[in-house]
Amino acid sequence: MSLLRAAPVSPSAAAMTRLRVRRDTLPRADGAAPAAADKREPVDTDTEDDDHDVGLDEGGLEGGARRRGRTGGFESIFWKSSDYISPERKAVSGERKRVTMASSSSSSSPIGVAIIGGGLFVKEQHLPAVLACRSLALRAIYSRSLKSAESTAALIPGLVAAAAAEAGQTQQQQPHVDLYSEDSDPGRALVDVLSRDDISAVIIALPILAQPAVVEAALAAGKHVLAEKPIAKDVPAAKALIASYHAQRAATSGRCTLSIAENFRFIPRFAYAAEAAARMGRVTHFSVKVMSHMRPDNKYYQTAWRQEPGYQGGFLLDGGVHHAAAARLFLRGEANRAATVRAATDLVQPGLPPIDTVAAVVRTAGGATGTFLHSAGTLMEAFEWDVACEGGWVRSAGETVTVKPKDGEKTERVFERTSGVKDEVAAWANGIARGEPNPLQSPEEALADLEFLEKMFVSGERDGELGRYELQL
Amino acid sequence: MSLLRAAPVSPSAAAMTRLRVRRDTLPRADGAAPAAADKREPVDTDTEDDDHDVGLDEGGLEGGARRRGRTGGFESIFWKSSDYISPERKAVSGERKRVTMASSSSSSSPIGVAIIGGGLFVKEQHLPAVLACRSLALRAIYSRSLKSAESTAALIPGLVAAAAAEAGQTQQQQPHVDLYSEDSDPGRALVDVLSRDDISAVIIALPILAQPAVVEAALAAGKHVLAEKPIAKDVPAAKALIASYHAQRAATSGRCTLSIAENFRFIPRFAYAAEAAARMGRVTHFSVKVMSHMRPDNKYYQTAWRQEPGYQGGFLLDGGVHHAAAARLFLRGEANRAATVRAATDLVQPGLPPIDTVAAVVRTAGGATGTFLHSAGTLMEAFEWDVACEGGWVRSAGETVTVKPKDGEKTERVFERTSGVKDEVAAWANGIARGEPNPLQSPEEALADLEFLEKMFVSGERDGELGRYELQL
Repeated sequence: MSLLRAAPVSPSAAAMTRLRVRRDTLPRADGAAPAAADKREPVDTDTEDDDHDVGLDEGGLEGGARRRGRTGGFESIFWKSSDYISPERKAVSGERKRVTMASSSSSSSPIGVAIIGGGLFVKEQHLPAVLACRSLALRAIYSRSLKSAESTAALIPGLVAAAAAEAGQTQQQQPHVDLYSEDSDPGRALVDVLSRDDISAVIIALPILAQPAVVEAALAAGKHVLAEKPIAKDVPAAKALIASYHAQRAATSGRCTLSIAENFRFIPRFAYAAEAAARMGRVTHFSVKVMSHMRPDNKYYQTAWRQEPGYQGGFLLDGGVHHAAAARLFLRGEANRAATVRAATDLVQPGLPPIDTVAAVVRTAGGATGTFLHSAGTLMEAFEWDVACEGGWVRSAGETVTVKPKDGEKTERVFERTSGVKDEVAAWANGIARGEPNPLQSPEEALADLEFLEKMFVSGERDGELGRYELQL
Repeated sequence: MSLLRAAPVSPSAAAMTRLRVRRDTLPRADGAAPAAADKREPVDTDTEDDDHDVGLDEGGLEGGARRRGRTGGFESIFWKSSDYISPERKAVSGERKRVTMASSSSSSSPIGVAIIGGGLFVKEQHLPAVLACRSLALRAIYSRSLKSAESTAALIPGLVAAAAAEAGQTQQQQPHVDLYSEDSDPGRALVDVLSRDDISAVIIALPILAQPAVVEAALAAGKHVLAEKPIAKDVPAAKALIASYHAQRAATSGRCTLSIAENFRFIPRFAYAAEAAARMGRVTHFSVKVMSHMRPDNKYYQTAWRQEPGYQGGFLLDGGVHHAAAARLFLRGEANRAATVRAATDLVQPGLPPIDTVAAVVRTAGGATGTFLHSAGTLMEAFEWDVACEGGWVRSAGETVTVKPKDGEKTERVFERTSGVKDEVAAWANGIARGEPNPLQSPEEALADLEFLEKMFVSGERDGELGRYELQL
């Protein structure tokens, strides 16, 4: 497990300023204590170009109508069956007992990690997730601008304090985090992060078009990569990246690994619902309806690269890939995988080019029929996955999952609102420690998510032409 | 207003047994007091061939999850704008104050009416609606078998008593109702009902395939007809019926009128929702999701003509035409009418031929995109219409209507569960009295409902071929 030992700082890294982040030396601009990011209050209004992730607001579409509450404890068969992760158990009625997924590796030396990107999603999600994961040691942050890297690092003391408080620890162990950026002094650019031997893993959260080249560079440097979704702007680009990855992996005797960060696959609510559906036999009908309005004052809308996207789908790709991933949790395997699609696409809000609406009819290989309706440019509010199977029906709407077996009682379970990113990052770390990436984070899964949408977009462009899926798992 | 005077009994009618229906002489087979049909408890388990109406259970698909309650009072602009009917006002919090829609004609002599059909829907809906309408005088019931006609008539005393009690009247005025059937003595067949001068209007609720010929016969006899939906088994048959009607109407100087009974257009909840949407400008997105399981033990499933339907769509036509009608309340006018459709159809439950599922993507003339997902063969439970407009969003789910103006507060209104049939029958009577049929009951509306579905069925048969709507209003 040489990857896990704390490697000495490389010469180039040693030449860099080492920043000991302290809360008293790096207060927030507004002087307030940083909010706990997993509560998803805005930590910062920074609108750097490399922020992620529009789709995070996965439960944010139902406004005041959503009921809130806590779920009872459960263990996900869906996850456990793969034996890769043991999900954080949700404590019943206020009892908070955490079983960290990465605990199996916590006795080893932690994995040195760098975060590439300093946008909203890094600040609000990746950073707290890394700091909360005992098997990861954050060693560096890279962002396009030093200002962005600094504003990200400034959040660390508060997050560490919050994590310590939650764990009931009085001692806070602040990490040593080096900052890198394109506008820093020589020796502090991206290539320098990737050349550090004490950093064996990187989380990459950059704009969609910028990301594949950085992923390839990180893989070439032998790093374990967790790259934000979508895997690429389109299926050909994703296939090229995957081919490059496998070539690189072969060349380096499997040293590097590529995982794609799709946090929706780690949201307990979806895992619970998909698991319930999987017990009910073949899917017969489904309906996905995710409708919201990406308003001009939305923090993600402010991002320049999102306002003028150079990739298909615009917000429908950026956020929609999450909804595709959640749909695909139900549409798995030979019988249930998506087989064909016809779709209509539309641009309703001029500020959301190229399209903001997709309405599709999807058929599975097993003959089930379903609709996928998604818009970022509508006043309709919906966040719903309905799946009927031969043996029952499962519905995930907002934070509530309803399960109705054919001859059984209907049950409802209300889940805590969570992005899934902490579990996602912990699962990634665990995969590195075990030497086997988590299959829910495989590039092939992310490719299938992308294809699920892309065939809809293409069908929409071609007036509803039949699209045939080829990459579903 | 010669049509409204109580004409003397014709010779053929005089020859018939006149049945004075009394509760003590015609008890129910099971000896129980008839239930109030507008509460929609099964009145009878009679499974005569001419029962209607599978789609009545419009709110019956959400089981225990549905909230129940009463709506506050409202008056429908949607209805009042046409100035044809003044809907029954729903009294707030228990105060029951009824303003019968047909009250404007109640000072005239009542309209003599016959009911053609003696199935479930007549027993549970049409019969109580006719008896509750002061401007209608029930004079005859025809059914295929005398047994069915008798079992229908046997319900009258209880219904009259219930109506009197509701109106606070101590006196019950029992109508004189003559029974007709194919197995009765000569002079008591269908043709004899239609030849009676004291019967100027007929309600026809027969199996889908049997109905058009009877409608034509009634029109030829100069009657005002209220015929159950769908108007016919398919668009060509419906067009032929409408052509025949207009020819007949011209030949009789407009004496006869044809109205189609689509009770969903008279359900206050839909009228309220459609009216709210109409105030919000052009439709941008919509979603219709009506999912249920027509189980073999369902009373409507027991009907022979439904189990082996000789018409397209099976239950999807029979019940689906209601859901199409409700959808079309939102999709009206030059901008919002449905323009094109692509659909997939499926048979999931072998007992529901020829198809039990349709999933469609519909585009309006104004470019809005929507999905229409309907199945009678699924374990999914849904009864939802969502419509987004430029100025807000309206949702009807179960009995609850949610209205969210773009810059306003979200409001929820829970409606009483009702079939709309009493309002529908009263509106029909009012139209007769005024000499102008209610436009919501026009055959052209019913034709548009039928086309809305038929294009989906055809597209499904042809693997999603684009269908173009031509008859939407």
